[in-house]
Amino acid sequence: MSKRVDQVLAGDIRAASRLMRDLDDRMPAAINALKSLYRHTGKGYIIGITGNPGAGKSTVVDALIEVYRARQLRVGVVAVDPTSPFSGGAILGDRIRMQRHALDEGVFVRSLATRGHLGGLSRSTFDVVSVLDAMGYEIILVETVGVGQDEIDVMRAVYTSVVVTVPGLGDDIQAIKAGLLEIADVLAVNKADRDGADRTVRDLMHMLDLRGTSPTNSVREVEIIKTIAAHGTRDDSGIADLVAAIDRHRDRMVSGQSGQTRARKRLVAHVAELVKGLLADRAEAALEAQGGLGEVAEAIAAGQTDPYTVAESIVAKLYVDAP
Amino acid sequence: MSKRVDQVLAGDIRAASRLMRDLDDRMPAAINALKSLYRHTGKGYIIGITGNPGAGKSTVVDALIEVYRARQLRVGVVAVDPTSPFSGGAILGDRIRMQRHALDEGVFVRSLATRGHLGGLSRSTFDVVSVLDAMGYEIILVETVGVGQDEIDVMRAVYTSVVVTVPGLGDDIQAIKAGLLEIADVLAVNKADRDGADRTVRDLMHMLDLRGTSPTNSVREVEIIKTIAAHGTRDDSGIADLVAAIDRHRDRMVSGQSGQTRARKRLVAHVAELVKGLLADRAEAALEAQGGLGEVAEAIAAGQTDPYTVAESIVAKLYVDAP
Repeated sequence: MSKRVDQVLAGDIRAASRLMRDLDDRMPAAINALKSLYRHTGKGYIIGITGNPGAGKSTVVDALIEVYRARQLRVGVVAVDPTSPFSGGAILGDRIRMQRHALDEGVFVRSLATRGHLGGLSRSTFDVVSVLDAMGYEIILVETVGVGQDEIDVMRAVYTSVVVTVPGLGDDIQAIKAGLLEIADVLAVNKADRDGADRTVRDLMHMLDLRGTSPTNSVREVEIIKTIAAHGTRDDSGIADLVAAIDRHRDRMVSGQSGQTRARKRLVAHVAELVKGLLADRAEAALEAQGGLGEVAEAIAAGQTDPYTVAESIVAKLYVDAP
Repeated sequence: MSKRVDQVLAGDIRAASRLMRDLDDRMPAAINALKSLYRHTGKGYIIGITGNPGAGKSTVVDALIEVYRARQLRVGVVAVDPTSPFSGGAILGDRIRMQRHALDEGVFVRSLATRGHLGGLSRSTFDVVSVLDAMGYEIILVETVGVGQDEIDVMRAVYTSVVVTVPGLGDDIQAIKAGLLEIADVLAVNKADRDGADRTVRDLMHMLDLRGTSPTNSVREVEIIKTIAAHGTRDDSGIADLVAAIDRHRDRMVSGQSGQTRARKRLVAHVAELVKGLLADRAEAALEAQGGLGEVAEAIAAGQTDPYTVAESIVAKLYVDAP
């Protein structure tokens, strides 16, 4: 086992940050280190927080950190939401709020930017989560914008996914339907001091009921919690209720058949993301080897070929099917 | 040239729908038909409409259809937004509004669902756009939720991208910053009869100015238009202004150096998506050949291997590097 692996296992922040950077660059030594680290994972509890921009996800994350820290648990945060203050996309107020965690050695925050890579976001997220898990963070919070496919893929890989919404979306509550409801384990109606919070809860319950009747969906227990995350951990913030709902979901997930099924699904999702990522790496290499496709674009523009034929030949050139 | 290609070129709706379905299933004959059709593309003008759920994208699309139909142009619509009424995710009011277009032979609507495929959304979108283009639709509107990476990739491939936002997001206007501003050719501040519309316009102008000073961004002309799309094409709806802004962008894009550069970028984006898609197909086939990864998950759970090693062996097993 390399020195680097030992350092990360010992919780060395600098070594971990360096490893994460090297993983981003797909350095082979880093990937080998990750393989060694993997057997030390599985102890951290991974919680996903997603929802539309403006729902207050970061504020919820902030309050959750506070609760878990009060429980003496170490918290790792992966922010894959480009609008999150954790990712540097913050407004000033949020940034100031975050800073107290920056001084807390029990909290480690890692931001991931969408880099426009073919590989997407999910692989990097999985990598960082595994490193944090191996480092011994007992709670790992993954904050993501929850609308795109990549983001939904990320949510498939967490243990408990919290979808944050707000009152006053009106008819737009339909928006939440899009993929998000399917992946929600706990629904938080944040900013619940706003008008219409109860209506939003009712609408969500109705949508969950509708979902229950679908032949392709087995009924899953989903709790809906009203929160005012901006109140932090004050009694009226609902954050204690949210954590309790997460705990209940956790209890259901770590025990019994459903827990094991879910664990297997997570592993399958992880492997699928990695396969996708490896193939994307090859695609990128292929495109770069073509000198960035400039000539190919000219040929297509001149009507000499078409994008479909070009794409096939690029793939064929790099790979031949194994016998 | 196959009979099917002739039918599609002649504008046969049933043949086109069948072809799109077959393309979704990646049938080789359908892909060959698409190759034949490709040389007949390039005449349609592709406009992307994106923005956060609740911004009123579908209402904007609806009003745009009306304007272009009044100009006697045939309009194809690709809805890749799961919350769009065009995609079936509508509230009743929207659905009723859409129906008048259902009776208009000059309007063809195709919805795409996120299917959880490794290949993502973009390839299907490109395929449908190419078919609509070859069929002779002069205007092709692509409506998508604009937050995820897949959706941004789609927007890279259109001629003019309209990002729809609303007043009253307050500080959450930062949310728009996330990738969307980067791809916006025209910004529509919809629901402009709400409080704060002018402030939103000012904020957006400020953000565009900030962008202009970035060393990695060349300054691009982006118009900001206030709309009330729910007013349809009434004088106060601002839709005429929006169309005029799209027209001006179009004029800039079809002429001069910037137009040609953009056209090349579109082709490159298209080929990159296709390569990504082809590799994803292979990945899916690989995963299916493994019997859905169930055994692999067991082995990982038992600590016999790790996801990274498994993913590498799956990729290696299927492909060997060509010499």
